[in-house]
Amino acid sequence: MKKVPLASSSGLSPIVILVRPQLAVNIGMVARAMMNCGLSELRLVQPKENHLSPEAISGSSGAAVILEQARVFDSLQSALQDIQYVQATTARVRDMAKRVYVPEKAHALTAKRLTKGQKVAWLFGPERTGLENDDLIMADALVQIPLNPAHSSLNLSQAVLIMGYTWWIRHKKPTEILMTGNSKVANKHELDLFLDSLEHKLERAGYFHFPEKTDRMKRNLRNIFTRSDLTSSEIKTLYSVISYIK
Amino acid sequence: MKKVPLASSSGLSPIVILVRPQLAVNIGMVARAMMNCGLSELRLVQPKENHLSPEAISGSSGAAVILEQARVFDSLQSALQDIQYVQATTARVRDMAKRVYVPEKAHALTAKRLTKGQKVAWLFGPERTGLENDDLIMADALVQIPLNPAHSSLNLSQAVLIMGYTWWIRHKKPTEILMTGNSKVANKHELDLFLDSLEHKLERAGYFHFPEKTDRMKRNLRNIFTRSDLTSSEIKTLYSVISYIK
Repeated sequence: MKKVPLASSSGLSPIVILVRPQLAVNIGMVARAMMNCGLSELRLVQPKENHLSPEAISGSSGAAVILEQARVFDSLQSALQDIQYVQATTARVRDMAKRVYVPEKAHALTAKRLTKGQKVAWLFGPERTGLENDDLIMADALVQIPLNPAHSSLNLSQAVLIMGYTWWIRHKKPTEILMTGNSKVANKHELDLFLDSLEHKLERAGYFHFPEKTDRMKRNLRNIFTRSDLTSSEIKTLYSVISYIK
Repeated sequence: MKKVPLASSSGLSPIVILVRPQLAVNIGMVARAMMNCGLSELRLVQPKENHLSPEAISGSSGAAVILEQARVFDSLQSALQDIQYVQATTARVRDMAKRVYVPEKAHALTAKRLTKGQKVAWLFGPERTGLENDDLIMADALVQIPLNPAHSSLNLSQAVLIMGYTWWIRHKKPTEILMTGNSKVANKHELDLFLDSLEHKLERAGYFHFPEKTDRMKRNLRNIFTRSDLTSSEIKTLYSVISYIK
């Protein structure tokens, strides 16, 4: 069976449990969001619709493997039998004593449990109502996704996506790359040769007609082209441009 | 007109520009994701369908105000007239020299521009194809959402949601709260009184029948109830429980 790439380098990741999901298409979209974020194990508690229906498969757009591997349970309790640590996502604060974390904080605790060899599950409730208190009771902690208080409702797959994305990028450092396609950034020698021939062209064209300003004008020109990480092919383009300087 | 709460404390946030969006329902779902993340200004370039259609309004589920305020343009160029800094989201790397950032890094640059009073726009392409090279050319930088390379396709509103969510939480520290509903965590005096009466009950019931083990058994009991941040009302519950100890 096709293996789904896992999220964490350790090869361990949380199990997604959908409690009483209503619509097959949403189960499919959850599978898609899981695959986006390298999550592989899905459990369904009393799903109203078939998670292998055409709606579910098309909703998963390419993540059907997760639906095929998903296990269905007749109660949340039975779905949690082999789990050591449970986090329940909820939008509303209830009259219940529970720790509530934002995803980033919750993930740090999840990672600790996973590295201890424990199984961790994330609970997501039905589309309309969310998890009920009887579900939340079974969780070690609650997770609340901090959103605009004026409009915090997310659909099921979006809640899974935010939990999954924040988990997926946990170990990723903010990076910056210069994408240069098939070309590479020019070295300073290539740049200097171009700037020299540009100055030469402009000199001949009478561009530097105030001797006292010439040096500054040349500095400004060099600065313009030095700032912009020109690639070798872009410099070729500029050569052909200045070839039209008469 | 109803004002949409803004994302950053400074009251400034990026403008979302959808380039040639195909489906009205997706435009609506983008508005919903924007409102989730406190983003308010939406611009549409050559939308295929009407962003005020019933499909769009229902897709926005409560964020119609963003659709009503949205402006439509006949070209990306005209949509960018008043913008100083443009980031284009893209899934594929192109043959073009551009800086590419992950969202967290891109947001740091966006914040700098906004605090300088500059307008910043995020570009999102059509559902099926994404942005074309002619669109990307107009961007100062590209943003690539790092996802499972084996399955990185996101739908339009999910891409907006991840950009918006990572922007929205930029200033939020990972927090942990103990949610106790209407009750408060018991103080140590309440806890001690309860543990004393528990021990008293168990003593009378003959629970401590090995004198040499009594101290350790009492320590264990105290530890169980001390670990769990009992609230005052939970302690009341436990009192009624132990009242049944004969």
